[in-house]
Amino acid sequence: MSFSNIYYKDSDLYVEECSLAEIAKDMGTPLYVYSAQTIRANFRAYSQALQNQPHLVAYSVKAASNLSILNLIREEGGGADIVSGGELSRAQAAGISPQKIVFSGVGKTTQEMAQALKAGILMFNVESVPELTVLATVAGDLGLVAKVAFRVNPDIDPKTHPYIATGFKETKFGIPISEAFDLYQKAAADPRLSVIGLDCHIGSQLTSVEPMKATAERLNLLLDKLSAGGITLKYLDIGGGLGINYHGETPPSPVEWVATMASLLAKRKELTLVLEPGRSIVGPAGLLLTRVLYDKVTPYKRFFIVDGAMNDLIRPSLYDSYHEILPVLDRQRPLSLVSVVGPVCESGDFLAKDRQMPLAEPGELLATLGAGAYGFSMSSNYNSRPRPAEVLVDGKSFKTIRTRETLADLLKGETL
Amino acid sequence: MSFSNIYYKDSDLYVEECSLAEIAKDMGTPLYVYSAQTIRANFRAYSQALQNQPHLVAYSVKAASNLSILNLIREEGGGADIVSGGELSRAQAAGISPQKIVFSGVGKTTQEMAQALKAGILMFNVESVPELTVLATVAGDLGLVAKVAFRVNPDIDPKTHPYIATGFKETKFGIPISEAFDLYQKAAADPRLSVIGLDCHIGSQLTSVEPMKATAERLNLLLDKLSAGGITLKYLDIGGGLGINYHGETPPSPVEWVATMASLLAKRKELTLVLEPGRSIVGPAGLLLTRVLYDKVTPYKRFFIVDGAMNDLIRPSLYDSYHEILPVLDRQRPLSLVSVVGPVCESGDFLAKDRQMPLAEPGELLATLGAGAYGFSMSSNYNSRPRPAEVLVDGKSFKTIRTRETLADLLKGETL
Repeated sequence: MSFSNIYYKDSDLYVEECSLAEIAKDMGTPLYVYSAQTIRANFRAYSQALQNQPHLVAYSVKAASNLSILNLIREEGGGADIVSGGELSRAQAAGISPQKIVFSGVGKTTQEMAQALKAGILMFNVESVPELTVLATVAGDLGLVAKVAFRVNPDIDPKTHPYIATGFKETKFGIPISEAFDLYQKAAADPRLSVIGLDCHIGSQLTSVEPMKATAERLNLLLDKLSAGGITLKYLDIGGGLGINYHGETPPSPVEWVATMASLLAKRKELTLVLEPGRSIVGPAGLLLTRVLYDKVTPYKRFFIVDGAMNDLIRPSLYDSYHEILPVLDRQRPLSLVSVVGPVCESGDFLAKDRQMPLAEPGELLATLGAGAYGFSMSSNYNSRPRPAEVLVDGKSFKTIRTRETLADLLKGETL
Repeated sequence: MSFSNIYYKDSDLYVEECSLAEIAKDMGTPLYVYSAQTIRANFRAYSQALQNQPHLVAYSVKAASNLSILNLIREEGGGADIVSGGELSRAQAAGISPQKIVFSGVGKTTQEMAQALKAGILMFNVESVPELTVLATVAGDLGLVAKVAFRVNPDIDPKTHPYIATGFKETKFGIPISEAFDLYQKAAADPRLSVIGLDCHIGSQLTSVEPMKATAERLNLLLDKLSAGGITLKYLDIGGGLGINYHGETPPSPVEWVATMASLLAKRKELTLVLEPGRSIVGPAGLLLTRVLYDKVTPYKRFFIVDGAMNDLIRPSLYDSYHEILPVLDRQRPLSLVSVVGPVCESGDFLAKDRQMPLAEPGELLATLGAGAYGFSMSSNYNSRPRPAEVLVDGKSFKTIRTRETLADLLKGETL
């Protein structure tokens, strides 16, 4: 498994040029640690592959939404794919130009629409007819024009976890591609709307280009039909979803991914290609650092009970996902079959199940890799556990980008 | 399904004597609404059933940990079953006497142990040998004596969802019952420890007394052996876990539950019986109130897209749990096969799947019942969604017991 910028040096696990043991000494655990250089490199893989055509890499904010991560994306010239008013606020707080923000999601509220219209975002990816109606009304009331793309549902099996598959015709996402043409015509005739794009997103953690190839074919047919019908678009948003290697998956690289998309859409050179990568940029860049509290051996199982739990990283529990776990101190030691679990009081609280791992002692640090995406952003206070701090490593230095929550934070807004 | 205190009156859904439509007008949605009278009644079902013997009903704080709910429990004479330092702080903030607090959980940290020792809690439910060693050290360092019970694992199939089953021998929980006697002897000889109890908790959402009967038999055998060995205990903590009726389940009532336990433990009259109910007290008392944003009809499915999502209530997604959903306005209307989904950008975001429901229009309110337990306490900010407000209804009035999070709250502690 390749996690560039995460490696052993003199028996210690490092992120870039910082020792995780040193970071933990300073910051405590559980702790999210991200590599700025990895985020930059993963972003650039997209932007460089697209350098010969108009493009916008709109980072999917939901993957990891810390302001400092968004700021890195902004520095690289990136935009934002947002799905809520909260994410819009975050993108703006990080200084991302509204002109680089696209707003996706099936449940936009009128407040969120107004917030985004006033901000002057690039476009709304509209996911249903009723949403279009509401958006036109909100825009009309504000005396503004809403720039829209339709998110079409191509009815493609993305071959990923059902919870993150969105391209099936049975999902809540998008407009059936067969209905799109009529809707474009309707929207084009509405002065409160400006139809500028076409959008598609078939799922997350994709490990093959084949579903996207099939999707591109369908998009091409629709674009041809729209052109013939006199509807010219400026933006083609092909979504995100490129997978990463959690456990032996072999997803295409961003370069391959983009090259495939670009070749399939070669005759669309007039269109600005919008991509919405999230996981493939921050996933491999982040880890959850935990400390072993107890090595619990029963006649039936062995558990490393660590100080991180399902409230900190819910992916193993929610998606049955696999995350590689490495000891921070690299030394010769026997392997044993263990489960890595947290202090939360349910059996669903685990980071790894029945895995051959090097034996670890209480007090030792373990790093759960591939936790940069959908890690902190899905964290909760379950069991009244304060959420971890977040740290961004950049070369030889690291900085706190989110302080650890306190017990007082947990009580905010509550009254007896 | 019986949710006392939630009923239609003049075509409007009420909680106690408050109209949900009125509450929503005042507080907005999504919103958690709890019935104080239901919480009291459910608590009293336990305490009254136990009135003829020494007992402590230690409410399981993780089920719903709002200070006002804990305050209700305190007013009723209840204690707290906690699983973290955060929950200890909550229980103390609500004024629950430390003498009524038991501390469970497999991953207690030394800081949490010290916090609880200084607070003077009733007892630690110790879940492993290494935990006992650490606890003795922490107590010794502080010059205090830790009162302990051992949580034994009886190796019983509780017949519930695997994530909330804890009585199997393969789980991370407890000490194998076969090893308990030796451990009691060891602990009894340690001046830093005072062995005062025996604890057992086999799982959550139990719908039959049979697994608890089998458990009680094993506890009796152990208690006999301990008595014969000269170890006399003061507390027998049989945990919680009584289920509720989400969708046709027929769990025993608290009265039946307690009666069964009491009869099985009849010869243990000298012991104070400790119970740790959570779900059965607050589960039926709470609902998640949402508003329909869109009625999305595709050629394949129909979706009510509401403003509540998996970040607000993760149980359907995480446990595939069923929650009854009622329109707040009760009127004659046709049924249709619909899925109730939220705005979060994954297919795993749903409150109900493919269910025959009365048709609802955009703007209408829907109440998701049985959401009082493991609802707000598991909520997150996923998709940068502020967490809902919480409201407690008591008779004719209601009060905000937690304010709605703001976008500013979401950014707390972050830096660019």
